[in-house]
Amino acid sequence: MTYNAPLKDMLFVVNELANLSEINQLPGCEDATPDTVEAVLEENAKFCGEVVAPLNQSGDKEPSYWHDGQVTTSKGFKEAFRGFADAGWQGVQHPAEFGGQGLPKLVATPCIEMLNSANIAFALVGLLTDGAIEALLTAGSAEQKTRFIEPLINGKWTGTMNLTEPQAGSDLAAVRTRAVPQGDGTYKIFGTKIFITYGEHDMAENIIHLVLARTPDAPPGVKGISLFIVPKFMVGDDGSLGERNDVHCVSIEHKLGIKASPTAVLQFGDHGGAIGTLVGEENRGLEYMFIMMNAARFGVGMQGIGLAERAYQQAVAFAKERVQSRAVEGSAGPVAIIHHPDVRRMLMSMRAQTEAARALAYVGAGLSDLAHSHPDEATRKANLAVYEYLVPVIKGWSTEMSENVARDGVQVHGGMGFIEETGAAQHYRDAKILTIYEGTTAIQANDLVGRKTVRDGGAVAKAILAQVRATEAQLAEVRDADFTAIRSQLVAGSAALEAVVDYVVASTKADPRAVFAGSVLYLKLAGIVLGGWQMARAAIVARQKLDAGAGDAAFYRAKIATARFFADHMLAQADGLRHAIVDGAAGVLALDVEQF
Amino acid sequence: MTYNAPLKDMLFVVNELANLSEINQLPGCEDATPDTVEAVLEENAKFCGEVVAPLNQSGDKEPSYWHDGQVTTSKGFKEAFRGFADAGWQGVQHPAEFGGQGLPKLVATPCIEMLNSANIAFALVGLLTDGAIEALLTAGSAEQKTRFIEPLINGKWTGTMNLTEPQAGSDLAAVRTRAVPQGDGTYKIFGTKIFITYGEHDMAENIIHLVLARTPDAPPGVKGISLFIVPKFMVGDDGSLGERNDVHCVSIEHKLGIKASPTAVLQFGDHGGAIGTLVGEENRGLEYMFIMMNAARFGVGMQGIGLAERAYQQAVAFAKERVQSRAVEGSAGPVAIIHHPDVRRMLMSMRAQTEAARALAYVGAGLSDLAHSHPDEATRKANLAVYEYLVPVIKGWSTEMSENVARDGVQVHGGMGFIEETGAAQHYRDAKILTIYEGTTAIQANDLVGRKTVRDGGAVAKAILAQVRATEAQLAEVRDADFTAIRSQLVAGSAALEAVVDYVVASTKADPRAVFAGSVLYLKLAGIVLGGWQMARAAIVARQKLDAGAGDAAFYRAKIATARFFADHMLAQADGLRHAIVDGAAGVLALDVEQF
Repeated sequence: MTYNAPLKDMLFVVNELANLSEINQLPGCEDATPDTVEAVLEENAKFCGEVVAPLNQSGDKEPSYWHDGQVTTSKGFKEAFRGFADAGWQGVQHPAEFGGQGLPKLVATPCIEMLNSANIAFALVGLLTDGAIEALLTAGSAEQKTRFIEPLINGKWTGTMNLTEPQAGSDLAAVRTRAVPQGDGTYKIFGTKIFITYGEHDMAENIIHLVLARTPDAPPGVKGISLFIVPKFMVGDDGSLGERNDVHCVSIEHKLGIKASPTAVLQFGDHGGAIGTLVGEENRGLEYMFIMMNAARFGVGMQGIGLAERAYQQAVAFAKERVQSRAVEGSAGPVAIIHHPDVRRMLMSMRAQTEAARALAYVGAGLSDLAHSHPDEATRKANLAVYEYLVPVIKGWSTEMSENVARDGVQVHGGMGFIEETGAAQHYRDAKILTIYEGTTAIQANDLVGRKTVRDGGAVAKAILAQVRATEAQLAEVRDADFTAIRSQLVAGSAALEAVVDYVVASTKADPRAVFAGSVLYLKLAGIVLGGWQMARAAIVARQKLDAGAGDAAFYRAKIATARFFADHMLAQADGLRHAIVDGAAGVLALDVEQF
Repeated sequence: MTYNAPLKDMLFVVNELANLSEINQLPGCEDATPDTVEAVLEENAKFCGEVVAPLNQSGDKEPSYWHDGQVTTSKGFKEAFRGFADAGWQGVQHPAEFGGQGLPKLVATPCIEMLNSANIAFALVGLLTDGAIEALLTAGSAEQKTRFIEPLINGKWTGTMNLTEPQAGSDLAAVRTRAVPQGDGTYKIFGTKIFITYGEHDMAENIIHLVLARTPDAPPGVKGISLFIVPKFMVGDDGSLGERNDVHCVSIEHKLGIKASPTAVLQFGDHGGAIGTLVGEENRGLEYMFIMMNAARFGVGMQGIGLAERAYQQAVAFAKERVQSRAVEGSAGPVAIIHHPDVRRMLMSMRAQTEAARALAYVGAGLSDLAHSHPDEATRKANLAVYEYLVPVIKGWSTEMSENVARDGVQVHGGMGFIEETGAAQHYRDAKILTIYEGTTAIQANDLVGRKTVRDGGAVAKAILAQVRATEAQLAEVRDADFTAIRSQLVAGSAALEAVVDYVVASTKADPRAVFAGSVLYLKLAGIVLGGWQMARAAIVARQKLDAGAGDAAFYRAKIATARFFADHMLAQADGLRHAIVDGAAGVLALDVEQF
């Protein structure tokens, strides 16, 4: 089963919902003309479909393996990564001055989706490298930028994020890795990091580890964490590789999924100390890491969307091919199972959720571009606030939905889905990491409640809801059954979300346990309502195109039908979620620990 | 991580909700006194916890393997099966005249739950053997019963169900395996069967395959299928084993989960024909198979519940142990994650769904006992109808919920959950088969719509709803916040279910595609409402016990809190489901196949 990028859908979202025509007016984004964007996406689709996608199942079957400190990646990965880097795909959104293409995030985002549809385990090396680049761009010194960023963009080297330790998972306050200043501007790093994605591999000449550690006099907790660059091989002033640094991969994990991606245990300093250099200022490491984590969180959201699209395509292909049983309304003989209503329901659910999450994420990418490149500071600030509200939703909701979509993908295959050779089960296994790494859904939900809702008294959430209301008004102008249904469910959904925002703002201080008992449900509700909003916007555009007699009528009619499905099946859950959030804490919190 | 059977919960359901005191008044069920039942369950818990549970993870890690037609099962399985059979556990619910214990299904059901909590892959051999026994008891000749049932009960032999063929999965009309009469009362069987659970193994001396096949003049479709006994080794009149029959295991599958359980491809008749004998009459095979399938479907529902309980216990143990981050309400230092509200929410969700499904299933088992053993025919009939309505719900809903529970079990573990050594991921993988085999959830839903709802014009469903209403009235008598919330959600839930039943009855003939587009959602709604009903009944009993000052107050308070959770988090979804069923078909069915 191969992967065909849904370019038409992607371009629809990029152009019609995320407003490329506005984004490419921004300073520095002028190259992103519709023609260029289409050409970039087509080229990326070709590379992902032809080179990367075929390695997905083989990489799962023959994962990366560890031997004596070295990790050999799955067959074909090394060559594919060379092709990826040489074609410039690592640099799509990075600055031209360091060898990147300097395109907007709105253009990089579909590329990242495609790479993840093709192969999540492969895509991870680029995702982590993007994070390292982002952190260095933000907090690195001029010298660090010059030395490290270009080789990361051109794929000679790759990057990692070293946060987790055995006792410090979600809780970074518990980080113990030590950084001892040597008096020469360098530090010696000592400690153990676990769950380090591509912490060791054979796909690039060097690996640039970004490591959280504590200096000797650092205050306890998260305010005493600094960020260090610890290269696998030391890097000379001219960029040449020097001695092997004292960071070693002592094992890799045996995982449920993303098996081709090596997840390393890294030991720092067992042979005298790993040499690191400080990024930015001491004790501000968490702040810098958050920059890279926010980029990575958005990226993991895209992994969910990419995986969902792949699972959907595979399920559709099977459902069109597999003949089994007569149609419920009667048929001469057995029919392809795509004719059976429950199979249809699962496929529509997979499709609608994937499209909604894609639209929300791309719109988010466009907001990020406005937040970074708009000439007006107030506009930048306003867009940044909305983007930052959306990041935990895009990460949390897209990945949670990808689990459901991958699950339905197996189910559509019936018994064949449970057989590994079919490939559907791999998506089900791979999906499970996405709601965990780069912050579990609960961590995203904490962020949504605390930093994104309570801190501004719900102002940004309300501003977004005002935009949803404007869409509702537009929906009212189209008088047919589909639009009536979409509007009615969106109105109910936005009312539910508003009630929850009010509740969260009013209650978090007084009763934090009650609010956090519903925080993940709030995140899901936000995903459903804001995803449903994008589906409604898509339906409105599709209606306009149909009325104008422009383009592919079947495509636009499908957009309306999919929005209708989303409304009746997803948005319809909103009020139940509202109830569970606002009235459901008593049941969550009643038991004593001993009663479990 | 070991397994501790929740005996207190089980006995609560057996005694208070499924009314053991009524069941053990039935003719033939008199031995099932409360003391005996408690002793049986305790003994079973010990065996499952000590002998079978430790083989769960090791069996997953080192699955059964095939070599040259032979299957070697995972280490320890053979010995454990001998212990299982020798202690009489295969025969709990089977007739004493064939060596069984002759206990009610209500007593066998918790035993089956425990075995599945301990080890689903191991439990399957007994589940399939139960099915074979059931089919022979119902349709076998006196001679077949004498020859085959006792060795199946005492575990010298095991049984299989041979339905599926490559082109015939859910669609048994497509079965092609041929049965050619030999004129001596035997038939020669030719064909390929796939997905045969324990179709070959080394745990018993013989394997009795029950095989669906077509005789030469059989009508096409499901009305031309007959049922045959095809033993691995021929069985002499004295029960002694004779020649090897011409049925051979040509391979076993590489699966997502239940890896210790060999899933065989069986080739019948490649060397002249496998010798089979007819069960019952020609062309009535599907009918007999349904008997065994209904028992097996109930059994698979119990697998879901058993797996959910195990996943819950494992998640609770981890959540109590793992220390990470401060409490949201403030704490001196980091706390065990069970204190974090979202972890608590997941644990409550796992617990509440497991308890609700268990209560519904045990109540169903009691109805089955009434349906089989009550002296009054009308009472038997009425209970049979309710039981048969519940079977697809117990199978479909319990297994769907087990996927969610297993998923949450991984999530509670965070990154550790994704590492196979932890064991949480195995439940996530194992769970995925349960919604597929013995009829996918869609097949269960077809049964619920067609045979169980439309055929009697919704009469049984309405009779059940009348009982729910009676419980709602009882809830109204307790005036506190918990009972008010439980009642309010149950009232809304039963109203939603009634509306759906009316819709299904009114619309299936006129618009079958629309109804079947929501059939799985109807099944889920029925599960939630009827599970919620049992939780409400549990809360009422708990309140009475508390008021009487009897027993373990913390246990009874937990019952009320868990019912409250179920109401606010599960029952609250009912109206959204109703909407998706009654108004959601348009979105499901709008696209042409080409638009996918």
